[in-house]
Amino acid sequence: MNLYDATVPIFTKLLSGVDKWLDKATASADAKKFEVDTLASARLAPDQYPFVRQIQAACDQVKFTVAKLTGKEPPKHPDTEKTIAEIRQRIRTVVDYLATFSREDFAGAEERPCGHSWMGGKSLRGGDYLDHFALPNFYFHLVTAYDILRHNGIDVGKMDYIVDLPFRG
Amino acid sequence: MNLYDATVPIFTKLLSGVDKWLDKATASADAKKFEVDTLASARLAPDQYPFVRQIQAACDQVKFTVAKLTGKEPPKHPDTEKTIAEIRQRIRTVVDYLATFSREDFAGAEERPCGHSWMGGKSLRGGDYLDHFALPNFYFHLVTAYDILRHNGIDVGKMDYIVDLPFRG
Repeated sequence: MNLYDATVPIFTKLLSGVDKWLDKATASADAKKFEVDTLASARLAPDQYPFVRQIQAACDQVKFTVAKLTGKEPPKHPDTEKTIAEIRQRIRTVVDYLATFSREDFAGAEERPCGHSWMGGKSLRGGDYLDHFALPNFYFHLVTAYDILRHNGIDVGKMDYIVDLPFRG
Repeated sequence: MNLYDATVPIFTKLLSGVDKWLDKATASADAKKFEVDTLASARLAPDQYPFVRQIQAACDQVKFTVAKLTGKEPPKHPDTEKTIAEIRQRIRTVVDYLATFSREDFAGAEERPCGHSWMGGKSLRGGDYLDHFALPNFYFHLVTAYDILRHNGIDVGKMDYIVDLPFRG
């Protein structure tokens, strides 16, 4: 086992899948004659992040996860996106970053200390960081982004989120 | 690495954390004078599962994940819950089931073929089943349950979902 398998291909597939959600959002906007970019600021509660910020947070968690597990310096991505087109570009930027990683980069990742500045100098074992924080936090933002679209009548379904499954032979 | 670490303690902690969400929901219902059980049927879209069904689906994914990865027969849990008290009990039942598993049960789990009847006889390697389906599907239902409460004004926050982190010594 290598933590590459639990991170790079999964993040790549699930983030890339958001493009299809946004295709459906755009088709719905065209059919119902509303401006698709209004969805960028849609949210489920007034004190919760809107769609664009949920995607930014999911992208950041992906970037930090692979950088911290492999001891690399993550790139900076200022949260300037306001439109659906810009959100698509942010996702592509992170997917391109994921493509720079190899299985070899993740050698020893399970034991590598991983932390964020808000953890006040504390850290977690790499394996614990992935299981207890990185994956729950990534899914928290990705699924909430999905739920915001779903709540706004976009006809995304579970397989638009799961994308596909690597069945055996 | 052993897939026990990526499943049993995570599922136990996150599902147990739902009790705190429901404590907050109950406090909010008391303060605002509404019947807390109305939240059981709350949903974000008319053609999406309501809260109770999201929790049932999260519980089922947990049960199936640990059973399939270890080659055990999962218990049957009919989806009869209608109240918040019954939802709490469903969660306790699954958490108790998780407690019957040991790290030894997961020996060889990465390579064990795992599938569901709806996969039409196909299966995935255990490691792929966990990363590509079980975790995304579990979080899909757990986070949507959270979002339903959040959308209904319950003041749950991210740390009620993450619960706690196992920092290094």
